[in-house]
Amino acid sequence: MNNSDIILLSHGGGGRRTQQLIRDLILKHLGNPILDRLDDGACLDVPEREIVFTTDSYVVSPIFFPGGDIGKLAVCGTINDLAMQGAAPRYLSLALILEEGLALADLERVIQSVARIVRETGVAVVTGDTKVVERGKGNGVFINTAGIGVRHPGVDTHVANARSGDVIIITGTLGDHGIAVMSRREGLNLETGVVSDAAPLWGMIEPLLREIPKVHSLRDPTRGGVAAALGDIATAAGVGIRIHERALQIRPGVQGACKLLGLDVLNVANEGKALVICTPAQAEQALRILRTHPLGRQAAVIGEVTAEPVGMVLLETALGGERIVETPLGEDLPRIC
Amino acid sequence: MNNSDIILLSHGGGGRRTQQLIRDLILKHLGNPILDRLDDGACLDVPEREIVFTTDSYVVSPIFFPGGDIGKLAVCGTINDLAMQGAAPRYLSLALILEEGLALADLERVIQSVARIVRETGVAVVTGDTKVVERGKGNGVFINTAGIGVRHPGVDTHVANARSGDVIIITGTLGDHGIAVMSRREGLNLETGVVSDAAPLWGMIEPLLREIPKVHSLRDPTRGGVAAALGDIATAAGVGIRIHERALQIRPGVQGACKLLGLDVLNVANEGKALVICTPAQAEQALRILRTHPLGRQAAVIGEVTAEPVGMVLLETALGGERIVETPLGEDLPRIC
Repeated sequence: MNNSDIILLSHGGGGRRTQQLIRDLILKHLGNPILDRLDDGACLDVPEREIVFTTDSYVVSPIFFPGGDIGKLAVCGTINDLAMQGAAPRYLSLALILEEGLALADLERVIQSVARIVRETGVAVVTGDTKVVERGKGNGVFINTAGIGVRHPGVDTHVANARSGDVIIITGTLGDHGIAVMSRREGLNLETGVVSDAAPLWGMIEPLLREIPKVHSLRDPTRGGVAAALGDIATAAGVGIRIHERALQIRPGVQGACKLLGLDVLNVANEGKALVICTPAQAEQALRILRTHPLGRQAAVIGEVTAEPVGMVLLETALGGERIVETPLGEDLPRIC
Repeated sequence: MNNSDIILLSHGGGGRRTQQLIRDLILKHLGNPILDRLDDGACLDVPEREIVFTTDSYVVSPIFFPGGDIGKLAVCGTINDLAMQGAAPRYLSLALILEEGLALADLERVIQSVARIVRETGVAVVTGDTKVVERGKGNGVFINTAGIGVRHPGVDTHVANARSGDVIIITGTLGDHGIAVMSRREGLNLETGVVSDAAPLWGMIEPLLREIPKVHSLRDPTRGGVAAALGDIATAAGVGIRIHERALQIRPGVQGACKLLGLDVLNVANEGKALVICTPAQAEQALRILRTHPLGRQAAVIGEVTAEPVGMVLLETALGGERIVETPLGEDLPRIC
């Protein structure tokens, strides 16, 4: 590739080459009246008082994987963090750390993915930043997206709100994102047929909260998987959690890859699933609402909240046994998001 | 160093080791009732309608330099982006991309710098994220800070508001940050005595906007220096800009280093200076207010806005000549912020 096809250090220098990159590539796909002003900050009119503010950096490797790429992941991840707080996603920031030598065509693919989700969900990228680091000091693209959402009135979906007796719903299959990424890792190249589930969840969550604003807790089981998410809930709410292996839905490709790689699917990241904690009385209605959305068609109850043992997650195995589900130390699945 | 003293990949896995790092290092220094909840997003009560949202990633190399470090730089930079929009900084996010092998002691120093500025300015870090990449895929620490501020009523400091006849004030000396960082670059190690000017500017800007809410434009001349900042103003406002070399204040150490490195000080980054564009009638009062603040003691008029030539910045040299000040392509000063 010649120099006009790749990212150069000067693209990050804040001079004319930075301006050119922003105009030719970022504004071309993401332009809107606020972003087009190219201010160092975006002035927003937010009449609602209760806003939610979130941030995530994405360092997934490789940056392209079955079912998505780092751009789709970043936007979906931030939209979902807002959705899990019961907030309608409104505004995103997009900050890029590019590695010298990155193909501009790859960067454009990533930005197009961002643009697709932005169009689909109606959120707007309103401010951003571009930096460039030398070859060998980065990894193609790192993305940070921060987000601002507006909380639905009367909604409080904090994980500490889970109560003994509540049921635990998950909106679909387990482990698709993590396995899709792992399958493309250098030196691995597994043919699993698994694609990432990365998807923006607000379209599914919004009707749920409109109909059942008193849902107790929402959490997306991303990095650390269902195990870490349920562990957080058990700790924050001071409750126990019991899930049933028979109720978990796992694609054969995910199951096979987990076996091969020695992974517990409960630790594998999801990027388009939600855990919904509600009362048994709300469960049927919740399932009905979730299942009307394409992303929630396989929504199912997978367990319940118990008074004891506090802070612990237990799995009732398919054979009727029981084991403790531990929050992993963090060794198994680096750079999955 | 042994494994308990450095960042491991598992610190980014989202499991127990990530939790431990956040509790022992982040919450220890930055804890507050909102951050302590450790939600994926922060719920904020913002009664004002007009908010400003900004983001910046910091990749400065080296991460420690005379007068500061990447933590101080990140927080000041985001506070200043808000201040330049006429917004009181309220809430920050802090997202870390750590390189495997980073000394925990270095990370703690960076977080302590963040904490110091946070305490000094009264902003709060309310949400964050921690990722880890393998050795050789990052550079110690990259930081993204996004920020939310509340716009002062009646204030509009957009760069497009500059008008022919306006005066251009800068609040102090030129080029200190860029030269402080360059002086510590690998293989260079210049003894310039120059320290970075990185500082939070809202304390100086707030009284200015209270007394003179109709200031036309504010811009901090960071990456790309005064040349890029004034170039932006000239382009956005459709005006010309003329500055006077005699009026520029440059420390001898900065002057010497620029000569040695072949840099134009107008292209060198500042991280604690503001350009203030106002009418001549406001200028005296503006200077008086700025000079009462320790960061603005050397505030001075350095030029004026002209009708022509549109989009161009001219420098009247000390010898009475004139030259065009070009926005650099971006080659000279990589990774300065």
